[in-house]
Amino acid sequence: MDRQELISQIKEKRSFLCVGLDTDIKKIPQHLLSSDDPVYTFNKAIIDATAPYCIAYKPNLAFYECGGLDGWKSLDKTIRYLQTNYPHHFIIADAKRGDIGNTSKMYARCFFEEMGVDALTVAPYMGEDSVTPFLEYPGKWVIVLALTSNKGSQDFQLTKDSEGERLFEKVLKKSQQWADADRMMYVVGATQGKMFEDIRKVVPDHFLLVPGIGAQGGSLEEVCKYGMTKDCGLIVNSSRAIIYADNTERFAEVAAEKAKEVQQQMAALLKE
Amino acid sequence: MDRQELISQIKEKRSFLCVGLDTDIKKIPQHLLSSDDPVYTFNKAIIDATAPYCIAYKPNLAFYECGGLDGWKSLDKTIRYLQTNYPHHFIIADAKRGDIGNTSKMYARCFFEEMGVDALTVAPYMGEDSVTPFLEYPGKWVIVLALTSNKGSQDFQLTKDSEGERLFEKVLKKSQQWADADRMMYVVGATQGKMFEDIRKVVPDHFLLVPGIGAQGGSLEEVCKYGMTKDCGLIVNSSRAIIYADNTERFAEVAAEKAKEVQQQMAALLKE
Repeated sequence: MDRQELISQIKEKRSFLCVGLDTDIKKIPQHLLSSDDPVYTFNKAIIDATAPYCIAYKPNLAFYECGGLDGWKSLDKTIRYLQTNYPHHFIIADAKRGDIGNTSKMYARCFFEEMGVDALTVAPYMGEDSVTPFLEYPGKWVIVLALTSNKGSQDFQLTKDSEGERLFEKVLKKSQQWADADRMMYVVGATQGKMFEDIRKVVPDHFLLVPGIGAQGGSLEEVCKYGMTKDCGLIVNSSRAIIYADNTERFAEVAAEKAKEVQQQMAALLKE
Repeated sequence: MDRQELISQIKEKRSFLCVGLDTDIKKIPQHLLSSDDPVYTFNKAIIDATAPYCIAYKPNLAFYECGGLDGWKSLDKTIRYLQTNYPHHFIIADAKRGDIGNTSKMYARCFFEEMGVDALTVAPYMGEDSVTPFLEYPGKWVIVLALTSNKGSQDFQLTKDSEGERLFEKVLKKSQQWADADRMMYVVGATQGKMFEDIRKVVPDHFLLVPGIGAQGGSLEEVCKYGMTKDCGLIVNSSRAIIYADNTERFAEVAAEKAKEVQQQMAALLKE
């Protein structure tokens, strides 16, 4: 999916919500456990219920890998289900990969050729040749970690160099030499609030993938106030607050209500 | 496997070689492709041939993930094979994972509970709470990326802060607050040569996992000259130069010869 289509989807749906499919078999409703593939059954129901309110889905790989072979199967089926039934939803594999060139190439093959997702999150610590192999797939996106939503983001990402430039700013600047705003996005945590102003000084046009509203406590209003561009420029993710809002037989219905609430807030913020 | 046992294995085998199982189905000998599970068949043969000369195996996850479900199966079988037949070999999952706490916890469950490897490589960009969930498994090791072997290591890892401290040094210092040398190791690329001297100033006792000899061009002598401690303190990995040394029916035999060559160099270096 290219930038234009992404922007069209946002306008059409009046939403920039991404639903995070962080599906933990220990947290899904009990009554699903008797199905053949509880994780997939859960995802399918969540997707069908929330699709009208969001423009993207983001499975986090950890939640599938920890199920071993079965987990990998559930992920595969979930992605096929999305591709077949919701071809206009953007699919992000949240994997935070990154390795030497030879190895990143294999990850790229995994996510873009085999799995066929639209975008992959990538960790920048290993530098250019750990990221560029992911850029060899036309039409696919690389989403580089910049300033994350967690407490530990302060440990290294805020380190200032001798000229006062912080590490996340260096990552934003340097990585712009590798690809432009049509191929690259950045992860910036919703919990970073006013820092979005600083981010926008370095990447005025790039889309930002913003986790951290909901369970992690970030504010949607603040993110939009400091981070929104004329093209929206934001994909805001919510996982736990939507998918685990209820764990009875009404879980999908309640997830839809929660997604709709967020979508309505987003529609209002887009209007401003 | 604890530190004492690791040191004993090194002394007994007079080796600190780790064989990297970066098994790419496109690179293994043609005649294996007719077997049920070519990647596993290849790994089994490589393991049986090289086990006398090494103390560790390191599958890199990218090479298995890119095979999808089949790849995941091959990895699982390879690890079971090692655990059953070579219980004194140290198993490192080279995955370079790291995410917010809630998610790192899932990766930890995947690698330490389900898969049961001894150690996992972890990327430090997201800071403390992305790493500490991996430390909740007694007896398991976390191997944090410090100064990697690739060209891109220069992009961010060498960035100096206002006091002249480089990012990799900051990672080494900060992470020592999270666990000691009995639970944590660091990745330092063999291509970094004399930099091992600087590394040893910050982590005099920690084991270092050293990729980058062989295909990547690092020098074993230099690594030992600047990085070896009284307990050895090094696990040096070679992947491509050993496992792809030959691609005829003699591949395992030739891999054994290559591993033996490295082991003999190591025995001499340990003596000094």
